[in-house]
Amino acid sequence: MRQYEMFEISLTGEISEDNQAEVTAVISFEGKEKQIKGFYAGNGVYKVRFLPESAGLYRWKVNGAVSGEGEAVCVEAKAGEHGLVKPVGTHFIYEDGTRYIPVGTTVYALLHQEKELREQTMQTLQTAPFNKIRFCVFPKHFDFNSNEPEMLPFQITDGRPDPAKPCYEFWDRMEEYISRLHAIGIQADLILFHPYDHWGFARWSRQECLTYLTYAVRRLSAYPNIWWSLANEYDAITEFKHEWWAEFAALIRKEESCRHNLSNHNLLWKWDFANPDTTHVCLQSSAFEEVPELMEYGKPILFDECGYEGDIPYPWGNLSGFELVNRFWKAAVMGAYCTHGETFWNPEEILWWSKGGTFKGESVPRIAFLKEVLESLPGDLTYEVSDAERAYFEKGREGLKELAGTGGFPAAFVDYPNELLPLLIRTMTEMRSSFRDEVILIYNARQCRSFLEVELPAAGHYTIEILDVWDMTRKVQMTGACGKVRVEMPGKEGIAMLALKEH
Amino acid sequence: MRQYEMFEISLTGEISEDNQAEVTAVISFEGKEKQIKGFYAGNGVYKVRFLPESAGLYRWKVNGAVSGEGEAVCVEAKAGEHGLVKPVGTHFIYEDGTRYIPVGTTVYALLHQEKELREQTMQTLQTAPFNKIRFCVFPKHFDFNSNEPEMLPFQITDGRPDPAKPCYEFWDRMEEYISRLHAIGIQADLILFHPYDHWGFARWSRQECLTYLTYAVRRLSAYPNIWWSLANEYDAITEFKHEWWAEFAALIRKEESCRHNLSNHNLLWKWDFANPDTTHVCLQSSAFEEVPELMEYGKPILFDECGYEGDIPYPWGNLSGFELVNRFWKAAVMGAYCTHGETFWNPEEILWWSKGGTFKGESVPRIAFLKEVLESLPGDLTYEVSDAERAYFEKGREGLKELAGTGGFPAAFVDYPNELLPLLIRTMTEMRSSFRDEVILIYNARQCRSFLEVELPAAGHYTIEILDVWDMTRKVQMTGACGKVRVEMPGKEGIAMLALKEH
Repeated sequence: MRQYEMFEISLTGEISEDNQAEVTAVISFEGKEKQIKGFYAGNGVYKVRFLPESAGLYRWKVNGAVSGEGEAVCVEAKAGEHGLVKPVGTHFIYEDGTRYIPVGTTVYALLHQEKELREQTMQTLQTAPFNKIRFCVFPKHFDFNSNEPEMLPFQITDGRPDPAKPCYEFWDRMEEYISRLHAIGIQADLILFHPYDHWGFARWSRQECLTYLTYAVRRLSAYPNIWWSLANEYDAITEFKHEWWAEFAALIRKEESCRHNLSNHNLLWKWDFANPDTTHVCLQSSAFEEVPELMEYGKPILFDECGYEGDIPYPWGNLSGFELVNRFWKAAVMGAYCTHGETFWNPEEILWWSKGGTFKGESVPRIAFLKEVLESLPGDLTYEVSDAERAYFEKGREGLKELAGTGGFPAAFVDYPNELLPLLIRTMTEMRSSFRDEVILIYNARQCRSFLEVELPAAGHYTIEILDVWDMTRKVQMTGACGKVRVEMPGKEGIAMLALKEH
Repeated sequence: MRQYEMFEISLTGEISEDNQAEVTAVISFEGKEKQIKGFYAGNGVYKVRFLPESAGLYRWKVNGAVSGEGEAVCVEAKAGEHGLVKPVGTHFIYEDGTRYIPVGTTVYALLHQEKELREQTMQTLQTAPFNKIRFCVFPKHFDFNSNEPEMLPFQITDGRPDPAKPCYEFWDRMEEYISRLHAIGIQADLILFHPYDHWGFARWSRQECLTYLTYAVRRLSAYPNIWWSLANEYDAITEFKHEWWAEFAALIRKEESCRHNLSNHNLLWKWDFANPDTTHVCLQSSAFEEVPELMEYGKPILFDECGYEGDIPYPWGNLSGFELVNRFWKAAVMGAYCTHGETFWNPEEILWWSKGGTFKGESVPRIAFLKEVLESLPGDLTYEVSDAERAYFEKGREGLKELAGTGGFPAAFVDYPNELLPLLIRTMTEMRSSFRDEVILIYNARQCRSFLEVELPAAGHYTIEILDVWDMTRKVQMTGACGKVRVEMPGKEGIAMLALKEH
């Protein structure tokens, strides 16, 4: 047994017709007891899994469909094992304190492709910058996704998938990939439901959903790299009642052996991120200017679907490489995160976004560059609220009037409609974030500035770098800068400025 | 006297202290009489001007501060003289029936620069694609605009510009440029007020404004190429009451010798384009998706300030050349029009947008290409309302529900908030416009499509061209296309498709 690695108790018992047998383990560690539910893994095998988060002596006792007991010494984590990724404010950190900067990609139907393609995908991921991947339990039926999978997660009974009858082979495969993703440092952002269905998963009753979730969570929650994504486009699953989703989240919290990240992905209607079981904001959106309002949830903000680099007819699937990179940087400078995906059409209909394979676009190395830049900083960036925004947040229109009185805000803008004011205020200044007084990042996006007056914290001296997000260059522009400085810029799209405090 | 050319009656009388002397001419033509007001031109000279819109015998009789009478035969228009530009529906046409496709630029303080620079600007315009220019009567005080003009339109009395005391030399200069612009086919979109002021023009009383407008309109309205732009950023002139603007428009209609195009340019609050004296929609905006709603005014739509190609810090002044060209095409495919401007910083602070000079950007030849493409078409383009938009316009949400029932609209989208539905609907389909069943234009903007299914009118056969708006190429892709066709596209930004009916 090793800290941060799944520990599995496997016991043999009766062959079961379905997965409804109850198995419970009581785990004792340092005088505390924890109850964990097991699951039926097929072939008369029952398993209970848990993730030891600390080193030491663990005792376990299993009861139910099978029984047994034992103990094991859990040794300190292996180098490179960091434990679960947990939210801290609007950012993430591994359990052992290591920074985790989410840089995700998307291969929705990863598990439902043929072996050769799955292996190619894993090979591609091996050298890619991504440390999170969104993929689905269920197969996908959609444009460019008409290939029937070799097997389904559940058996079809009377033309309907039966959540009490898993295809154990599928679940074994899923676990294999979750483990292999973990081995290459990738969080498995597992999508539990989605609307692109013709098998019946998106038409399950509430009870069928709960049966499925109970099984999935008992089985998978001891994998350290699991994240729960309740759905992709939850609001497009028209057969599910809205109140089910919070119930699903609560069930997951009850059944999981340790608390994983959890959120829900929308088509049109954002999920309620105030939901206490929800750990982060997950969005289909490229409205990065809404980040300051979203920050009020106090949770990390992931634009998990901000559009895909590609060339298909749909507007969500034909961004230029530059535009996707631009969106990653826009999110980054707001203190948020984007997720990658690729939708290049080809006669084989192997589009990375659903099926994996290889990258055909130009964004991936640039996303790697962004990741390197963020990793090189001493801490995570947070959006800097401007004076006008602060005035507006704190005192509404009156605050802006006061600021206008001192020349800090244009008087003509004060009477703008309330709901549009925050965005108006935001577009008036550059996008800027910081980490304490150590780092200031400004990102010009598509604005081709040839210079910018930048206000630095008065106390320190700063080295100013100009970054070209497409050419992937960092160039020192000034050293010893302090106070208000004019920074020369190359007057093209995709330029960022980093000010780093000198020590 | 020649049709479509200004006819001027010039009489000498008393030297006047101010411009308040009244002169009235009665013009008789084919049994009809028209009263036209004259103005004092300085040095004891009084003038009455009018624009003969038809050939024939004109008689005139002047009374007031000076008097006189006479007659003249007006001969048919010279080749190349087309008369006034008038709105017809959402497009324009010259008085003689020639198409006018507005392709404007902006040199706000054209008249207030030194002669050498003014001449350079005129030389640049000579070979440029522009057929409209926005410029101000008053000088401009703003960033990059700190040079005091040689002279002001009005004398300063007690530290305040006096609208009764013109600097006649300035008005002569203005007229010289209006004439010279006309000679090279450029409409003079004259901005009558603006907020970038430190002389006092933007702090005039209502009565002072009326005095000024009366003089300007009596003096300038016989120039065939004059358009009246009540203001630039009218809503930023905080000293003027909102109700003044409609009064100014009405005064212009009363005083002008023939009806010119008239509109008003906003900062934040769009002008009321339903105003009966307003001939077209004039916007500071790049929200081209709002065109279908704006079309309900039944007037041409000009995005007179959609951002400038340049590199200054402000977001409105640092578009890439591509982005400005992209905006021109987005407007074009919505059946609307953009206006050009350039804001490249240089140590001399000569930015085209305010001062003229030469072009430093890359958009101008591409704008010329767009103009050529539009001129090559048999008629003006009008935005094609999609089935979903029509359903929504006609029956609101119920219409969408019906359409969703037949599979023509995603059911999940029906309940989206009312105010956001039109935009949502619009982003779901390609931007497409047409001229009868003769021409269909689709513009992909930044969407990098590698193909698109296009529905052509069933009756005809079409030649399909692919246009690269940046590389300025037109390439025939298919001939004899009809019905639903798959059109291959180069999968990059800035691609348009033209379908031209074969005859």
